[in-house]
Amino acid sequence: MKIAERIETTMAAAIASGQGGIAPSKLAAALEYAVTPGGARIRPTILTSVAMACGDDHPALTNTAAVALEVIHCASLVHDDLPCFDDAAMRRGKPALHLAFSEPLAVLTGDSLIIMAFQLLARTAPADRALALIDILGTRTGMPFGICAGQGWESEDQIDLSAYHQAKTGALFIAATQMGAVAAGQDAEPWEELGARIGEAFQVADDLRDALCDEATLGKPAGQDDLHGRPNAVAALGVAGAVSRFDDILSGAIASIPACPGEAALAQMVRAYADKLVPDGARSRRTVPGE
Amino acid sequence: MKIAERIETTMAAAIASGQGGIAPSKLAAALEYAVTPGGARIRPTILTSVAMACGDDHPALTNTAAVALEVIHCASLVHDDLPCFDDAAMRRGKPALHLAFSEPLAVLTGDSLIIMAFQLLARTAPADRALALIDILGTRTGMPFGICAGQGWESEDQIDLSAYHQAKTGALFIAATQMGAVAAGQDAEPWEELGARIGEAFQVADDLRDALCDEATLGKPAGQDDLHGRPNAVAALGVAGAVSRFDDILSGAIASIPACPGEAALAQMVRAYADKLVPDGARSRRTVPGE
Repeated sequence: MKIAERIETTMAAAIASGQGGIAPSKLAAALEYAVTPGGARIRPTILTSVAMACGDDHPALTNTAAVALEVIHCASLVHDDLPCFDDAAMRRGKPALHLAFSEPLAVLTGDSLIIMAFQLLARTAPADRALALIDILGTRTGMPFGICAGQGWESEDQIDLSAYHQAKTGALFIAATQMGAVAAGQDAEPWEELGARIGEAFQVADDLRDALCDEATLGKPAGQDDLHGRPNAVAALGVAGAVSRFDDILSGAIASIPACPGEAALAQMVRAYADKLVPDGARSRRTVPGE
Repeated sequence: MKIAERIETTMAAAIASGQGGIAPSKLAAALEYAVTPGGARIRPTILTSVAMACGDDHPALTNTAAVALEVIHCASLVHDDLPCFDDAAMRRGKPALHLAFSEPLAVLTGDSLIIMAFQLLARTAPADRALALIDILGTRTGMPFGICAGQGWESEDQIDLSAYHQAKTGALFIAATQMGAVAAGQDAEPWEELGARIGEAFQVADDLRDALCDEATLGKPAGQDDLHGRPNAVAALGVAGAVSRFDDILSGAIASIPACPGEAALAQMVRAYADKLVPDGARSRRTVPGE
């Protein structure tokens, strides 16, 4: 089964598990709305790819870990879009959940999805791997090092930029590589660097897309970094400089892949995925003089 | 060590675990604000009492389970108080968290506490009990049967009142009795009824307090059920009728306690705790003619 099929099949079963019995129908529908359409599913794809590179001896556990991670990511998007944060109107080409449903249902959808992620993992085996996966997912999601911490930095008067980026963007990529390894019975620690570097590359690619793509391509408003005065690699380095930075980080990421049976295939996957992240215009614009 | 001391010591360590390292300071402070002062800690006290009645052979696991449950309860209070839900100004005698900090920090505090609850359990042993505890806590917190579902019912046009009350109030009491049993190595299933009945009794007692107590006693505005037209046992049965209903439910709760070494002591604890729940004025008012 292809990775995308593994993820979508497992995701559909997970959402159905939250909708069974006598449940409030709007919240049940909102759970599904929050996780579809899937977008690139980049974090669960990385997780599954790492697990496969490590032998993937418990594929059902890998699938659950991948979906638990994506469910957490979707929960974070729903809460980040709330009026008190980004007040976003669009997400993945459709109205943000708090507009399609309501603000109370958006808060509850995020909460329910966070809970679902941990519960899915609690129902897997072997037990030692399941507990390690829950611990990693919690560390990279909550306080003091996870995406909640990353979002929390935006309420501080003085921001530790390194801690901010690592928590806000890096954390779930570190979760992806570490959970992939642990799902396949390997240690988490050697896989942290790959996740952190993919996270950095993703952040630079996101800055390029925000600067170069229009709303139709992004599925959300463009030019938001400029608008909100957020730190941005394109503002700091220009388009060409940001592309160079992206390529450097990517090389470092691939060099950091720990020795494993599927090392070469994993390197190829990371490179192929990375190519898709950089918007079409970015590389051609490198030749424009004075850019 | 007394139950209250076990809970507060473990709670303090749990919150510290979410504040370590380079963390955003306001969110770190908000975590602590959300769980203190502790109030009655009724759910973790029930959990610990059930575990002790069942032998409490892994007290550290019991303590963590109790605190994980209370942390989830505190998270739910923070999110329930948000402007889009109850828009509450006060909680436990001090400003609601979104007023003391901010609305973004209130959303993130709830999220971080939910995550913390599961992560605390993932770091305990034995592994099989830890996973079972996470599964129960998730079931009674998320969708379709947990407190999120309970809150979700309030967005429906047609409310299933039985499912609503069971999820909104009963769920965390069922979690309390079941998690206490599982922490001590017993099956969860026989303990569901005790939790459900304590939840019903608690709901009636809450209705009595809402109708009879003032804001200073409650630590939050009084008369809210009347104001919001919520279903309320006092409105349906009068004060005397609600007290009778409370006593009936309590008898049923005590009768439902499964056979276990500490059955008698547990029954005594439930009765003593229940006495504290009914506001002073309620029983004396039973003698007033025409009430």
